Amino acid sequence: MPLSDLDSQLMARALRLAERGLYTTTPNPRVGCVIALGGEPIAEGWHQRAGEAHAEVNALAKAGERARGATAYVTLEPCNHTGRTGPCSQALIDAGISRVVFGMEDPNPKVSGEGLERLRAAGVEVDGPLLEEDARALNPGFIKRMERGLPWVRCKLAMSLDGRTAMASGESKWVTGRRAREDVQRLRARSCAIISGIDTVLMDQAALTVRADELKLDNAAAIAERQPLRVVLDSRGRMTPDAPLLQHPGPVLLVHCGETANTGWPAQVETLALAGRDGRIDLTALLRELARREYNEVLVESGATLAGAFLGQGLLDEMIVYMAPKLLGSNARPLFQLPLDSMAAQLPLKIHDIRAVGHDWRITASPDPEG
Amino acid sequence: MPLSDLDSQLMARALRLAERGLYTTTPNPRVGCVIALGGEPIAEGWHQRAGEAHAEVNALAKAGERARGATAYVTLEPCNHTGRTGPCSQALIDAGISRVVFGMEDPNPKVSGEGLERLRAAGVEVDGPLLEEDARALNPGFIKRMERGLPWVRCKLAMSLDGRTAMASGESKWVTGRRAREDVQRLRARSCAIISGIDTVLMDQAALTVRADELKLDNAAAIAERQPLRVVLDSRGRMTPDAPLLQHPGPVLLVHCGETANTGWPAQVETLALAGRDGRIDLTALLRELARREYNEVLVESGATLAGAFLGQGLLDEMIVYMAPKLLGSNARPLFQLPLDSMAAQLPLKIHDIRAVGHDWRITASPDPEG
Repeated sequence: MPLSDLDSQLMARALRLAERGLYTTTPNPRVGCVIALGGEPIAEGWHQRAGEAHAEVNALAKAGERARGATAYVTLEPCNHTGRTGPCSQALIDAGISRVVFGMEDPNPKVSGEGLERLRAAGVEVDGPLLEEDARALNPGFIKRMERGLPWVRCKLAMSLDGRTAMASGESKWVTGRRAREDVQRLRARSCAIISGIDTVLMDQAALTVRADELKLDNAAAIAERQPLRVVLDSRGRMTPDAPLLQHPGPVLLVHCGETANTGWPAQVETLALAGRDGRIDLTALLRELARREYNEVLVESGATLAGAFLGQGLLDEMIVYMAPKLLGSNARPLFQLPLDSMAAQLPLKIHDIRAVGHDWRITASPDPEG
Repeated sequence: MPLSDLDSQLMARALRLAERGLYTTTPNPRVGCVIALGGEPIAEGWHQRAGEAHAEVNALAKAGERARGATAYVTLEPCNHTGRTGPCSQALIDAGISRVVFGMEDPNPKVSGEGLERLRAAGVEVDGPLLEEDARALNPGFIKRMERGLPWVRCKLAMSLDGRTAMASGESKWVTGRRAREDVQRLRARSCAIISGIDTVLMDQAALTVRADELKLDNAAAIAERQPLRVVLDSRGRMTPDAPLLQHPGPVLLVHCGETANTGWPAQVETLALAGRDGRIDLTALLRELARREYNEVLVESGATLAGAFLGQGLLDEMIVYMAPKLLGSNARPLFQLPLDSMAAQLPLKIHDIRAVGHDWRITASPDPEG
C-alpha cells in the first residue's frame, strides 16, 4: 500500500511516544509504536527502560484482540532476536497485525532487515521507511554505535556573543543563566557518559552530575537515579582522592597515560590507561571503549583545549553552544583551541537550530564536510 | 476617547506606511499617516523624501472632503513649524479632522508638544502616544539626534560561530554569504554615513558604496542615487588619491589628526582634522560633527580595533552581527578588540533578534546598561 498522509500522522505520533524514553532506555534505542485500525489509533506504547517490554509489546498489550487486522506504526524496525525480551516481529505476527509501517531499518548491520523479512514471510504487509530522518534523530548514539562502533559525541559549550568561554584567568562562573544551566542538566541526563578534562574538574570544582531538582522534568527523580559515567581525562595523574568531583555519587572513570601517582580511590572510581602515541590520551580509543560498554551518547563538557582536540581529530558529531548576551572581550578564552591559518582551512558547520533558552540562545551545530 | 484595539490596528498600518520611507526621508524622520472615518481607513500617506510633502499632507490630499470629522493616525506628532512645507497641525485643522491619534511626541525638545497643543486649541481631540516603542524604532537616528545631538551608531560585524572576523593575517573574504552581504547593502542604504578605518579601506579595498543591483528592493535604483557619506578614519594620513575607495562615486570625508601628507584629492573628498587628546581621532567630536550635518544613522564597518574603540567609549547604540556557520579558529581575529580582565568587567548586551539570512544568522544586539 503506498504511504499516505494518514500514515505520516500516525508515525509522527509514534515518534513523539518514542521521545518519552529519551532519558531512560539506554543502552537500548528510544522506540514508539501506534496501533491503528481503519486509520484510527487504538493503542500505543513506547520503550521505557532496558530489560522492560519493547514499544510494540506495550502497544499490543493495550490493543488486545483488536490488534487483529490492524496496522502497527513503529519508529524502528521490530527486533527479530530473543534478548531480554522475545522478538517483536513474532509478537506482531502472533497478534494478527496485518500491516507494519516502520520509521527506519535496524541500524545494526548484522540483523538489519531480518525483522521486516520475518514479517513479510508471515504475510504481513511491510511499508517504510517513513519519516526516516526524524526516526534517526531519536537515536543518534545507538545508530552510530551500531553502524561505526563509536558513541555519538556531543560537545556542550557556553560562550559570550564574541565567542569566549572564560576570562584569560580561567574565571567562567557564570557565562550563561539558570535556564541554560538547566538545559545542560537535560543534556547530561540523556547522556551515557560525560567527558571532561582534569583542568575543568579541578578549576571549576565541577560535579558533572545530574541533579533532579534542576532537570525541570515530570519524572526527574527517576531519571536522576541513573547517573552518567563521569570520565575525567587526567593524562598526568593530577586527580586526588579528595577532589570535589568524588564527593558526589555516581561512577567515575579516571583515564590516564600510564602514571597514577595516587592510590586509595573510593569504590566509585575505575582507572584506565589509554596513552596515545603523542603522549596524550588516545581519544579514539576512549570512544571505542565507551561504545564497547554500550554507551550511546556522550557529552564533552570541557575547556577549549579538550574541545578543540575532539574537534580537530574529527571526533565531534554535534555541538550545543549556549550563547550569552554579553561580551567577554578579546583577551578571554576561545571557544575551541584550534589554530587555523587561512580562510581555506576554515571549518564549515551546519547550524541546525537556534532558539532562546531564558536570556541565552542555544545553537545546535555540527561539522559539515560538504560545507 | 480611550484608545481601542481598532486604534492600535490603524496605527500599526500607519507604522507600516512609515517604513516605506526607510531609505529616502533623511534627514527627516520616517512618518506614516492613516485617515479613518467610523473606524474605516479612507486614505493613507507617508513621507517619501525631504523637501516633499509630509505624511499627513499626502493622506489629506487623498481624503479630500471626506477628511471632515475623520480621525488621523500619525506615527509622529504633527509638526507645527513652517519649514520646507507648512505646519501639518494646521493642515489637519483646516481639513476638518476631529481626532488625532499620535504614535510618539516630537523628539525635538524645542518644539515637542507644540503640534499637539495647536490641535487641542483648535478643538481637535488628541490621543496618544500609541505603539510608542514601535514608533520610536522607526527613527532611532532622528530621535537620538534631536534628543542628544548625536547620530544613532550601528556597527556591522561579520563573524564565525566562534566569534572571529578574519584570519590573523587579516584575510576575511568571505566570512558570510551573498544574502548577508545583500543585507549589509540595505544597512548602508538606510544610513547617512558609513564609518570605516584606513586599514579596512586599504586592506580589503572596500568601496563602501550602495549598489543598486545588490539591494534587492523594488525601488533600488532611486535609493542608490543617494550615496551615504563615506567617512575614513586615517589618523596618520595613509590614504592616497589613487585608493580604490576613491574610484567609486559618492562623497568621502577623510578624517585625520592634523597631518595629511597627500594633496591632490578628487573633488568628492573633504578632509577634516579631529585630533583627540590621546593622539587618535576624537570619535565623539566626529559623531557631533555628523549630527550637526543632520546625519541620523551612521554605520560603522571596520575591523576589531575601531569597532572596539567605539564600543569601549560607549558610543555604540546597536550591533548587527552576521554569524556564519563556520569556525575560524583560536588564532583568528576577535569580534571587538576590547581587553577585559574579569567576569565583573563583562559587557552585558540585550539581544533583540536573531534570524536566518541565507545560510548565515543575523544577530541584533545593543549594550545593556541594566544587564
